[in-house]
Amino acid sequence: MKCRRCRKPAVIDVRRHNAGFCSDCFLHHCREQVRRAIDDFEMIRPGERVLVAVSGGKDSLGLWHLLRQLEYQADGLYIGLGIGEYSDESRRYAQAFASGEGARLIDVDLPAGFGFDIAEGSRVAHRAPCSACGLSKRHLFNSVATAHGYDVVATGHNLDDEAAVLFGNVLRWETGYLGRQHPVLPAAPGFKRKVKPLVRMGEREMAAYCFLAGIDYMVEECPMADGNRHLGYKAALNTIEERSPGTKAAFVFGFIERVHDRFAPDAEKEREDLAPCTHCGAPTTGDICAFCRMQERATPLALNEPT
Amino acid sequence: MKCRRCRKPAVIDVRRHNAGFCSDCFLHHCREQVRRAIDDFEMIRPGERVLVAVSGGKDSLGLWHLLRQLEYQADGLYIGLGIGEYSDESRRYAQAFASGEGARLIDVDLPAGFGFDIAEGSRVAHRAPCSACGLSKRHLFNSVATAHGYDVVATGHNLDDEAAVLFGNVLRWETGYLGRQHPVLPAAPGFKRKVKPLVRMGEREMAAYCFLAGIDYMVEECPMADGNRHLGYKAALNTIEERSPGTKAAFVFGFIERVHDRFAPDAEKEREDLAPCTHCGAPTTGDICAFCRMQERATPLALNEPT
Repeated sequence: MKCRRCRKPAVIDVRRHNAGFCSDCFLHHCREQVRRAIDDFEMIRPGERVLVAVSGGKDSLGLWHLLRQLEYQADGLYIGLGIGEYSDESRRYAQAFASGEGARLIDVDLPAGFGFDIAEGSRVAHRAPCSACGLSKRHLFNSVATAHGYDVVATGHNLDDEAAVLFGNVLRWETGYLGRQHPVLPAAPGFKRKVKPLVRMGEREMAAYCFLAGIDYMVEECPMADGNRHLGYKAALNTIEERSPGTKAAFVFGFIERVHDRFAPDAEKEREDLAPCTHCGAPTTGDICAFCRMQERATPLALNEPT
Repeated sequence: MKCRRCRKPAVIDVRRHNAGFCSDCFLHHCREQVRRAIDDFEMIRPGERVLVAVSGGKDSLGLWHLLRQLEYQADGLYIGLGIGEYSDESRRYAQAFASGEGARLIDVDLPAGFGFDIAEGSRVAHRAPCSACGLSKRHLFNSVATAHGYDVVATGHNLDDEAAVLFGNVLRWETGYLGRQHPVLPAAPGFKRKVKPLVRMGEREMAAYCFLAGIDYMVEECPMADGNRHLGYKAALNTIEERSPGTKAAFVFGFIERVHDRFAPDAEKEREDLAPCTHCGAPTTGDICAFCRMQERATPLALNEPT
């Protein structure tokens, strides 16, 4: 197989695009995919400061690298979730990448700063660990971006992630979530704009990008995600994609182009009910936001002392 | 496990309903599920004549049996598709059931009446066999019902079928198909009302119904369906259902209750473009309907001699 762009021998075959690429042209292809996602969905305007949510894995480090390659002013935010050795090691990958690039990494630690870890938050909030974790990350991501004056927050959700989340939301027809599922969530009172520049990149392509770009990342998956429903959705979609390459992209982009608008009012209605959390000021439908409630239950005495 | 209804030992466990049933109560449960589907969606009005599409398999024979148990005036239509021994055998099952019940079975044979079989139709129309078959069955089902003055046509699509079709339509966001996917398709110029009374019944429950009701049915699957995409969708959904019983029902009924209306205009738009086929009179978007075009290509001389 030859490189689609320069005709040299290909090192990777992207079946969805029915194309092979040599190493240099693949890195170029990835940059173009991200550039196109950013342009198509008007994710980042010139001069804006971007905060990238960095876990130490291939997607977030690859995204940070790609944004810097495309000359965006992008800093990183690492959130320590207190998941034992897994957290320690992923922090080391994030820090090593940042220092190698000479990039700024903000480091927030959930146990040190808020007095509880994901296992404890999950227990007291009666939520699955992945739910407590997602809630904490979304909350801190938004509050740190606000505190540090970033214009936009970027996450490393790739095409496979988006397809799996969409599949889960469609299986239960979560109309509010469907109304919010988009590569760009516009800013709103109390919310920074959220963007997903990797929406055109598959999981396997991100792994290849990191390998070919020489990015050292945390390969191990989170030990608490084991048995997570989304892994089942991913497996189901992978089986179908294997047989019909392009299925995931058609699923996600067909939704964005022809279907998302039909659910947008459902999300709008939910947003109208939001008011600032009486403790932290984050938008919430109750008096106290779900993150502060979780913290209160986990560490009743610590609630008034967030860092 | 005990029967939910009479506390005798259960012979079947319906995980989705978290309930076990003894043989008699399971048959009662199935009748109630079908009665409820018919009532909820106003499928059949008192005194209406129903034509049931009968393949000889568990779903269509079970449906026919259930409608007769519920005292509907239901006759059967068997369509011979010319798929060798498979067609011969499935016809024998349909005929045996009809004569055992003393019920009327209309028998239409595609090769004998129209001069081509599914393999040939598939070849000349450049369609997958399942597509040529579905097209032929829909066409003949509607035209026979019209010719014989039936009010409504009923098909044996069960919950698993509906979930798999919905999954396929959602993966490609076929907005027109989504607008037509409903347990009742109302009558329209040239179209009889179409209903799916088994929408609340799983595949496994239909097999158990036939077994417990003593209905002898064709177990073998169509040899031409091998590798059909829908089988892949069913397998994917089965894996998810296995882990989260009720997923398929939530997917299908959530769609019907909260989502179908959002796509109905897409189907409406397609219906507006229909006009009678210049050959057979069936509604079509072209001059000649897809069935007549397929017949014309397969047997140019036979086009003017339909039975």
